[in-house]
Amino acid sequence: MSDTTSGDHTHGSALEEFRTFRERMNAEILGENNLVINRFFALDGRAYEAGALDVKTKELLGLVASLVLRCDDCVTYHLVRCAEEGVARDALFETLSIGLIVGGSIVIPHLRRAIDRWSELEPVRADS
Amino acid sequence: MSDTTSGDHTHGSALEEFRTFRERMNAEILGENNLVINRFFALDGRAYEAGALDVKTKELLGLVASLVLRCDDCVTYHLVRCAEEGVARDALFETLSIGLIVGGSIVIPHLRRAIDRWSELEPVRADS
Amino acid sequence: MSDTTSGDHTHGSALEEFRTFRERMNAEILGENNLVINRFFALDGRAYEAGALDVKTKELLGLVASLVLRCDDCVTYHLVRCAEEGVARDALFETLSIGLIVGGSIVIPHLRRAIDRWSELEPVRADS
Amino acid sequence: MSDTTSGDHTHGSALEEFRTFRERMNAEILGENNLVINRFFALDGRAYEAGALDVKTKELLGLVASLVLRCDDCVTYHLVRCAEEGVARDALFETLSIGLIVGGSIVIPHLRRAIDRWSELEPVRADS
Amino acid sequence: MSDTTSGDHTHGSALEEFRTFRERMNAEILGENNLVINRFFALDGRAYEAGALDVKTKELLGLVASLVLRCDDCVTYHLVRCAEEGVARDALFETLSIGLIVGGSIVIPHLRRAIDRWSELEPVRADS
Amino acid sequence: MSDTTSGDHTHGSALEEFRTFRERMNAEILGENNLVINRFFALDGRAYEAGALDVKTKELLGLVASLVLRCDDCVTYHLVRCAEEGVARDALFETLSIGLIVGGSIVIPHLRRAIDRWSELEPVRADS
Repeated sequence: MSDTTSGDHTHGSALEEFRTFRERMNAEILGENNLVINRFFALDGRAYEAGALDVKTKELLGLVASLVLRCDDCVTYHLVRCAEEGVARDALFETLSIGLIVGGSIVIPHLRRAIDRWSELEPVRADS
Repeated sequence: MSDTTSGDHTHGSALEEFRTFRERMNAEILGENNLVINRFFALDGRAYEAGALDVKTKELLGLVASLVLRCDDCVTYHLVRCAEEGVARDALFETLSIGLIVGGSIVIPHLRRAIDRWSELEPVRADS
Repeated sequence: MSDTTSGDHTHGSALEEFRTFRERMNAEILGENNLVINRFFALDGRAYEAGALDVKTKELLGLVASLVLRCDDCVTYHLVRCAEEGVARDALFETLSIGLIVGGSIVIPHLRRAIDRWSELEPVRADS
Repeated sequence: MSDTTSGDHTHGSALEEFRTFRERMNAEILGENNLVINRFFALDGRAYEAGALDVKTKELLGLVASLVLRCDDCVTYHLVRCAEEGVARDALFETLSIGLIVGGSIVIPHLRRAIDRWSELEPVRADS
Repeated sequence: MSDTTSGDHTHGSALEEFRTFRERMNAEILGENNLVINRFFALDGRAYEAGALDVKTKELLGLVASLVLRCDDCVTYHLVRCAEEGVARDALFETLSIGLIVGGSIVIPHLRRAIDRWSELEPVRADS
Repeated sequence: MSDTTSGDHTHGSALEEFRTFRERMNAEILGENNLVINRFFALDGRAYEAGALDVKTKELLGLVASLVLRCDDCVTYHLVRCAEEGVARDALFETLSIGLIVGGSIVIPHLRRAIDRWSELEPVRADS
């Protein structure tokens, strides 16, 4: 899982697998045209748009909420967005530390996987 | 868990793996003869039997409860039962939409996996 | 809600207090005009409208989801709606029994308060 | 819940109110004769009976599980049982400390209420 | 509950009651000198100190984590701190909206109580 | 038992994978020197040291807390520690049965995986 990232798909297989599955299933879900689900998905996107708070802060809020609720996929999603928004490694760790204090040791396995994901994302950030 | 999957894997490997592991471990757990655990397993079965509410409605109740508590295996189990009871795709999506509204975006990754499982189950239903 | 509360407080003060506080705070929240919150509140209403599943079934789904997530106010809200939709006492208990089996003994205190609320609601139903 | 509290309220009103409400509602729930609910209540009692583990240890297990799931009434119930079984104050605090580490700061408000309840219970223990 | 607070204790009774109980029980808990609990309490304070992220952002993180975990007392505590740090009403609502989207309608009763608390806190802020 | 992994993979790959990933990520996390996280990790270890309660009892408390919070990795960690402390199979099942009663059927998939892990651990115990 670690020394992956060969040739072309630079971003690591776990992350790629997450993205591919996420996109495929979102398409299938939205294609069903269930009004409540489709509006919720749209609203989910709106919640993180810039307003009184900037996008970076909102992504950190989404990240810590996902961490204490212990949802790996949600954490991964917000880590990707945090990387895109240029969140620094120390700011990331401080955010995760608040999630750890609030949520307790039960959060640790998710913290491990979060840092593992982040390691896949940092090279991407360095490129951008 | 591995040596399962006979002939054609019509029903999908994820579902087969779930079933095989579930049956093997249930047998091992019940074989221990812990009175509380064994009675709980029996009671778990009774809860979904027909009464004032029919079986189909009860399975939808089990499904939405499993979804908001975000347990993939429990969701899978109730999806299998819903397919067996002939739940239609639109009724399924409406049930899941209530789980999504009640439980929030944290439910979405489980929703994706639920729909992925359902795709494996629908051909089975079509046969029956 | 307000136009209730006739002479004697037949319907119980706990229920009245819930309704009054709920309406006052909903008004204050919606008055802020936060787009995401206001749309979510609207969507929350849509999720329980009749579709492939009827309103009564959807309210039972909302009830069991609220019970396993152990939210007293949410349980109270869906109990009120179940009473309005004419859910019978045995159907109610079967729904709650599924919540109890799925959620475990941790659900019991909420089950007690649910039944206490239901006792306030049944005379209302008898009137209607 | 109201017509409780006899003579001196030595044991504290919060604890008395909990006990009275619990007994009244349990009676109403069991009186409905829903098979699944009634069997679950019976099984709930069996789980804490002496076996390979003694009753005191089992009550500590029930206490820590209730604390991390953040159910005040469940915590109160197990505190009463722990007091009856003669659990010492330092053993109690060590049990709660594990709940705090596992569950995080979100547990603290429940920890406060637990210690407040325990203060009502200790004089009872001293009497017995 | 609304038009309370006459004369001296301007900040509202619900908030005052929370503070008094919190301080009294914290003193009793820390007085027990359980090493794990006392160190956890100290660490809990450290997590919100300024670092790569400023104090205001960290309090918003603590707030959203508390909201999705649905702990009223934790929400109240962070609301008090947010008021002290000068968080504006629109920034507060955006933070809560993320909690609502992530956590779902189950969060709404806690959202109502949060806004009710905030109304008690805003006059305090205006004074400072 | 920790520095295991002899020639043949008798102890099962799932357990080994858990250990390797856990150690690698813990090292990376602690290497970041975030004060809050590092102190939390240290405190997490202290919580299970012998005091008024012995280590074995504390590990059972950690196990049941992990089970009702449904964290597979946390359950696995405490199972490993329980095996090291010589917890017997019937005591283990009684602990898990309390977790099942408190947490409900949603716990069952984690119970299955727990027993599967325990089967990998028992030969280790027999050796020691």
